[in-house]
Amino acid sequence: MIDAKASSTRAIVLFAHGARDPEWAGPVRRLAARLTERDPSVRAVPAFLEFMTPGLDAAVDALAEDGTGEILVVPVFLAQGGHLKRDVPVLVEAARARHPGIDIRLVAPVGEDDGVLDAMAEFALASLSDR
Amino acid sequence: MIDAKASSTRAIVLFAHGARDPEWAGPVRRLAARLTERDPSVRAVPAFLEFMTPGLDAAVDALAEDGTGEILVVPVFLAQGGHLKRDVPVLVEAARARHPGIDIRLVAPVGEDDGVLDAMAEFALASLSDR
Repeated sequence: MIDAKASSTRAIVLFAHGARDPEWAGPVRRLAARLTERDPSVRAVPAFLEFMTPGLDAAVDALAEDGTGEILVVPVFLAQGGHLKRDVPVLVEAARARHPGIDIRLVAPVGEDDGVLDAMAEFALASLSDR
Repeated sequence: MIDAKASSTRAIVLFAHGARDPEWAGPVRRLAARLTERDPSVRAVPAFLEFMTPGLDAAVDALAEDGTGEILVVPVFLAQGGHLKRDVPVLVEAARARHPGIDIRLVAPVGEDDGVLDAMAEFALASLSDR
């Protein structure tokens, strides 16, 4: 039997590096708001590797508490470096171990997506002509 | 009189943080290639704040050497933190002082652009449905 509550609740964790400057989180929060605007059935929450809270653990635990059935962890990183290769899979594995009933998936960082790179190229060329 | 060579040569410096892992630079290099594909009249070169070379100084000096008339520095950062508020304007000011004949401009980081945030939202939602 399918648990209707759990299977119907999906969330995206926007997992970013974090920084000492509180303003650094602005774009991550704007991205979360944009996701929920586009698909109100999806919860979108930020989480941070360091300097800012919540961490990935706390973000996932709070979503689990709310009965979330599926969590997609989207690294809001430009590229795959040491953190994403080494630290993040360990955090995701630990989250899965704590919440075996939740489908937790980790995808590639946003900066490796062709659509995102195209949008960056667009921005750079528009800034060049914008005089 | 306008210097035809200098005024006709424009470049974009994709200024990224850098990382110890050489693979981290992949998306920055792909972005540079994409920019040149879209507009072959624009040179696009990567530069890094730390761990990788060239630095911003060396990248700008090399472009100056080639007779570039206009340089746009595009921070390939997700957001404005300490580096972009403090370190990067100093580097850009120093580059202007070294090359007073070149128009050197610094724009906002790519992650603060709405089009880039939209593309990230698109990627996240597509990854969620992609099962």
